[in-house]
Amino acid sequence: MKKADIALVGLAVMGENLVMNMESKGFTVAVYNRTTEKVRNFVEGRAAGKNIIGTYSLQELADSLEKPRKIMMMVKAGQAVDDLIDNLLPYLEEGDILIDGGNSHFPDTIRRTEYVESKGLLYVGTGVSGGEEGALNGPSMMPGGSPAAWEYVKPIFQAICAKVEDGSPCCEWVGENGAGHFVKMVHNGIEYGDMQLICEAYQLMRDGLGMTAEEMHEVFAAWNETELDSYLIEITRDILGYKDENGETTVNYILDTAGQKGTGKWTAVSALDEGVPLTLIGEAVFARCLSAMKSERVEAEKVFPKTIPAFEGDKAEFIECIRKALYASKIISYAQGFTLMATAAKTYNWNLNYGGIALMWRGGCIIRSVFLGKIKEAYEKNPALQNLLLDDYFSSAIKELVPAWREVVAYAVKAGVPMPAFSSALNYFDGYTTASLPANLLQAQRDYFGAHTYERIDYPRGQVFHTNWTGHGGSTSAGTYNA
Amino acid sequence: MKKADIALVGLAVMGENLVMNMESKGFTVAVYNRTTEKVRNFVEGRAAGKNIIGTYSLQELADSLEKPRKIMMMVKAGQAVDDLIDNLLPYLEEGDILIDGGNSHFPDTIRRTEYVESKGLLYVGTGVSGGEEGALNGPSMMPGGSPAAWEYVKPIFQAICAKVEDGSPCCEWVGENGAGHFVKMVHNGIEYGDMQLICEAYQLMRDGLGMTAEEMHEVFAAWNETELDSYLIEITRDILGYKDENGETTVNYILDTAGQKGTGKWTAVSALDEGVPLTLIGEAVFARCLSAMKSERVEAEKVFPKTIPAFEGDKAEFIECIRKALYASKIISYAQGFTLMATAAKTYNWNLNYGGIALMWRGGCIIRSVFLGKIKEAYEKNPALQNLLLDDYFSSAIKELVPAWREVVAYAVKAGVPMPAFSSALNYFDGYTTASLPANLLQAQRDYFGAHTYERIDYPRGQVFHTNWTGHGGSTSAGTYNA
Repeated sequence: MKKADIALVGLAVMGENLVMNMESKGFTVAVYNRTTEKVRNFVEGRAAGKNIIGTYSLQELADSLEKPRKIMMMVKAGQAVDDLIDNLLPYLEEGDILIDGGNSHFPDTIRRTEYVESKGLLYVGTGVSGGEEGALNGPSMMPGGSPAAWEYVKPIFQAICAKVEDGSPCCEWVGENGAGHFVKMVHNGIEYGDMQLICEAYQLMRDGLGMTAEEMHEVFAAWNETELDSYLIEITRDILGYKDENGETTVNYILDTAGQKGTGKWTAVSALDEGVPLTLIGEAVFARCLSAMKSERVEAEKVFPKTIPAFEGDKAEFIECIRKALYASKIISYAQGFTLMATAAKTYNWNLNYGGIALMWRGGCIIRSVFLGKIKEAYEKNPALQNLLLDDYFSSAIKELVPAWREVVAYAVKAGVPMPAFSSALNYFDGYTTASLPANLLQAQRDYFGAHTYERIDYPRGQVFHTNWTGHGGSTSAGTYNA
Repeated sequence: MKKADIALVGLAVMGENLVMNMESKGFTVAVYNRTTEKVRNFVEGRAAGKNIIGTYSLQELADSLEKPRKIMMMVKAGQAVDDLIDNLLPYLEEGDILIDGGNSHFPDTIRRTEYVESKGLLYVGTGVSGGEEGALNGPSMMPGGSPAAWEYVKPIFQAICAKVEDGSPCCEWVGENGAGHFVKMVHNGIEYGDMQLICEAYQLMRDGLGMTAEEMHEVFAAWNETELDSYLIEITRDILGYKDENGETTVNYILDTAGQKGTGKWTAVSALDEGVPLTLIGEAVFARCLSAMKSERVEAEKVFPKTIPAFEGDKAEFIECIRKALYASKIISYAQGFTLMATAAKTYNWNLNYGGIALMWRGGCIIRSVFLGKIKEAYEKNPALQNLLLDDYFSSAIKELVPAWREVVAYAVKAGVPMPAFSSALNYFDGYTTASLPANLLQAQRDYFGAHTYERIDYPRGQVFHTNWTGHGGSTSAGTYNA
């Protein structure tokens, strides 16, 4: 029997679908699962008659593979991955490649790359986005790890991944060790932000403009023909138009408490670690936390009854303002996310290709959108672009959007409709474009109570000063040069 | 010679000042420092003629102490604390008490309490706030650790700590293991928030109203006679009024780039871990990060030139609105901080006394204020208070403040003056008091692309539903009960 091109361990739905996808592209795939019953069910069921080899022991798995062996692990993130690596190693040899396609936290992938490389093997940690359907029909894939592994996994990954209109694969090499899983994490954080923005636009239309789901269905359908064209706008359109068998709009009956699986949180924590203002995603994560406090919110509304004023003005015009504000906020979110990646790249010594990342997200994954094509262009034009806002296309766009953006956020503020993500985006924009922030006062405070010292605008950076603000303890030392 | 009541290891300024404070209250203090030269300098200098015993070895230190020994460590947070503990243990015996008065991260204190208790000793991790001056004249102290240690350290801690007007000590037992350092961490996060709020009010007056430092000096002086009466408002008044020997206002020459020492970040990360929306402190931490991007901001302002409109209207009236907005935002920040403590208390099994915590912060520390007296009253009235906003005093206050608050934030939004902390506070208020947030749409999205399921408002909690939103793959399954 022909040896397999790749093996996959872990036959849950994602794993099975990836196997079916690989096989459909002409690869022979060996499969293994700890509960071997799953292997049998799979090869006798969906995999019957296909170039899929069921194996029932790790020895058999190793023997079934062409060398260098390529084994993709699709198991639960965490200890299970470490255990599986240790179980597999005795059956593998120098140059073989272990691939983690799960949702691992990037520091784990950094650690595992080092560990597996120390055994003479190669390691790949790859983000796989697009859910079950993506796994079957073409996911967005973000591989990082041992660079030497890329030439071996590239033909398979680029065959099975999503493609954009011109056929470009939504999979490129991201960078060393944990870079792939890091980029996947940021992707998930951005997904949190995109979803929160759509929700806030929805809430403003629902509670501020008194619109029905049917009316908003039309709005999102129209928006999907603009710069906002994206998977999430598309499914929002569908959701708002969806009626159950009794003719009731389903979304109106769904409980407003969102869970979170942790990757949005990881992104926010990473931003705090890197010192990068990732305010919009931070607010999006916190908004989910607040949504979970349902019974408390119900009680709080009784204490502070809502009196959202009726909208007066041209509704259609204001809806267009909301669209512009959503677009502007989305630009901010991506600008923040790409800044986080650039900062982390310095910390971890990754050489990231930002245009390539935008392309990987362009198809296959939840945040796929036409918009990402523009980001790709911006980074292709200037790979060292410091902030998306400084790109010509996006700076022109933002300038055109700003008046509507301010209008919408100010309206929500006055009306009492919470729009934390829109607001944080606008505040970031206003802060980022302010040469003189009030941190001079903050530095004075820190120097006052903790003698932390400060720098001055009229002296070179690095020279520090301390002022004896109270005048206690002898002569005033304001402006004394201490360096 | 009389044996010492307590020992202190680590003679940097904070340590020395604590020793002087203890001695002045009638305690005999043994001191030790790894660089023993420091011990000699201290006992021959500031400590000369006082009941302070210099020791030059850990053996000598241990021998100099009354039993059970109480040794306070004032060394750099991190590995140095672990090393010192291990070095001290051989000289100590059952029942002796090790005290960490540094800025340790609470998970370390949890771990160390367990470790030291496993050796038969007792452990205390205490927050000490108020800087060098506080250490000397009365800091705010937040001790946690082994409950059995409290009766031994209480007389010393409550003698040296700050006192409020009625003589109550700003030091009470916080809770087990890491509770003291956790509360200190939240204190520091709140300090970040308070400082950021003051800075934003300052920036709005400076850039939005075109006011001079002298004018703002008067404003803060007046504000300090209102509910805002606090140390930070007071020093802001002083700073804005401070002129150097050439008659120049010093704060106008300070560079607007703020550093951060990490404890604000820890608070935000802890909130993300606990799933508590701590949006204001999060924005305050990110605002410091943004301030550090000075050269990038200068460039960005060139791309997006500022056009802040001249203020038209009654300036004095608007300044009062800013004061109200600041007060309202501050209430939100403390409401969020206390919610974080309550949630962490459940996670870590701490029995926190929230009124007691407010009292500890009432004096001695950076965030000391009259306001904290009101928080103490709120929790004394109802120790199980779910959120500060639901207390009668604060809910009435907020209701009165809301119109001005909206006015100010909307004005800043329109004018382009960044006020991320004010905005996030108002958005939290509007979200917290909204019974129906838009997370119903978010849950629909998650169910659409990931089959995450959702709950319904017309079914009991816990019953989950999945909808086949696209209708692909056979019969529509909307509303099908899956549980």
